[in-house]
Amino acid sequence: MNKFELHILGCGSALPTMQHAPTAQVLNVREKLFMIDCGEGTQLQFRRARLRFNRLNQIFISHLHGDHCFGLIGLISTLGLLGRTGDLVIHAVADLEKLLRPQLDYFCKDLSFQVIIKPFDHTKHEVIYQDRSVKVSTIPLDHRVACAGFLFEEAENDLHLDGAAIKFYNIPIKDLAGIKKGADYIAEDGQVILNNRLTKPADASRKYAFCSDTAYKEDIIPIIQGVDLLYHEATFLEEDKARARDTRHTTARQAAQIALKANVKKLMLGHYSSRYSDDSLFLDEAVKIFPHTILANELLLEKL
Amino acid sequence: MNKFELHILGCGSALPTMQHAPTAQVLNVREKLFMIDCGEGTQLQFRRARLRFNRLNQIFISHLHGDHCFGLIGLISTLGLLGRTGDLVIHAVADLEKLLRPQLDYFCKDLSFQVIIKPFDHTKHEVIYQDRSVKVSTIPLDHRVACAGFLFEEAENDLHLDGAAIKFYNIPIKDLAGIKKGADYIAEDGQVILNNRLTKPADASRKYAFCSDTAYKEDIIPIIQGVDLLYHEATFLEEDKARARDTRHTTARQAAQIALKANVKKLMLGHYSSRYSDDSLFLDEAVKIFPHTILANELLLEKL
Repeated sequence: MNKFELHILGCGSALPTMQHAPTAQVLNVREKLFMIDCGEGTQLQFRRARLRFNRLNQIFISHLHGDHCFGLIGLISTLGLLGRTGDLVIHAVADLEKLLRPQLDYFCKDLSFQVIIKPFDHTKHEVIYQDRSVKVSTIPLDHRVACAGFLFEEAENDLHLDGAAIKFYNIPIKDLAGIKKGADYIAEDGQVILNNRLTKPADASRKYAFCSDTAYKEDIIPIIQGVDLLYHEATFLEEDKARARDTRHTTARQAAQIALKANVKKLMLGHYSSRYSDDSLFLDEAVKIFPHTILANELLLEKL
Repeated sequence: MNKFELHILGCGSALPTMQHAPTAQVLNVREKLFMIDCGEGTQLQFRRARLRFNRLNQIFISHLHGDHCFGLIGLISTLGLLGRTGDLVIHAVADLEKLLRPQLDYFCKDLSFQVIIKPFDHTKHEVIYQDRSVKVSTIPLDHRVACAGFLFEEAENDLHLDGAAIKFYNIPIKDLAGIKKGADYIAEDGQVILNNRLTKPADASRKYAFCSDTAYKEDIIPIIQGVDLLYHEATFLEEDKARARDTRHTTARQAAQIALKANVKKLMLGHYSSRYSDDSLFLDEAVKIFPHTILANELLLEKL
């Protein structure tokens, strides 16, 4: 099965602590690494997760609060020292250009690669990246500053070959790639063997939705409907619901309500406020609404 | 004895690794904390060292390479979240203002305290900070960019009271503070008791010199002459001497030569290049020249 797995590098909130690093994740799609957010120290968490810098493909920054982007300059500086040559594309709101570029120009003068900042419109749900493996679109969120989540949709997987049938019909190797994509087989004598005789169904394409930071927002439900995994912020507990509303954050209970209404397969909570000493409080609150909930934690690897 | 002790928060070089964090130190002088350099992740190392953010007094930045200053914005942001009120003074070359201020204006808009950047002239050895406990002066260094080390000189310590003499002469408590500062005692009947009858010598004032990053530079020797502790960078081993020269760094052997010629009491090496797997190679090389050498390491506490 193709890789589609999520590494949590940090799941704390504004105040980095010894328990939680600030927000950063890496989604590994078929060995391409997509980074989501990049709080201070992300490059070190990346190393700790034993990820490979040369596999890093695109970076998606949800919003320009420090706990989601202060690690960019250090990461880029390190990529330079490691001799990266491929362009690095960062998707973010437009302000990142004016904030990051002067830093790059000063600290990373002789960079061996281009840093391309592609601005997105955080108010729209639209595709901002696509390749043969994955499509990424924005999810408009409701935070104190311009903020978007990201929906990662795996491209269609190849059909599985039916080994016995391939052998029985004596299909040449050169034709297998086409058959995996859905082609029928036409023998030299003109006989047609339909694709469904030669293959078994492809693995389902997987979807991952990242939603942080945001107030409770039902508008996102149609976008994240039925995803395999929803990461939703749960900065607060329900007892601090008013504070969550005022700061445009979510409680664990609210995150679970979103998961339930969107009928997702699994919910992962994160972005815990440092005011609570015990993360399990978030889980306790959420599972009452949506049982299939797990807690993000540093260096957690979740295979979708 | 008054505190005068050094916490190493990071002693790696440009490339942060799982072995070494980028450069950052804290000198505790009588419970005031003076930070030297602030690489990415310093705020977390500060927590790990169990230091108290509200004791942080002044920050000294040797030069504007990322591994010495990328942690500033995150640290300041955290100080804001913690509700700091006292001014934070950062001593650095003038460029820091234009680099850091736009970041502060964007990410730390409602800061509860002032960040004051005091530029220094890295080409001169001059006093840039002084209070009742300590005097800090710059040490011009030779690096690829404008760079200065820092000499911390403890203020004169109070004389120790001679308990038996104080009792014998029946000195009132109200006079003790003056006597500790060197005053004679004049009794009500006019009798003068000389200070040296009432006191024992004060503890010697201690000196700490931080020299990183720099090529081998004998000009610093008169400035750091006889200091209690010299932290000197040793990015390379002697086998990479040419590389050290080209990149304006020092080898462990050269650092030891400086220590020897400056007749310092103790040498601490740091700023190790990540190319070497074993830090003890630096020590082996240095002790042949200057035996009283130790290796910096994360969370090392060195009492002077």
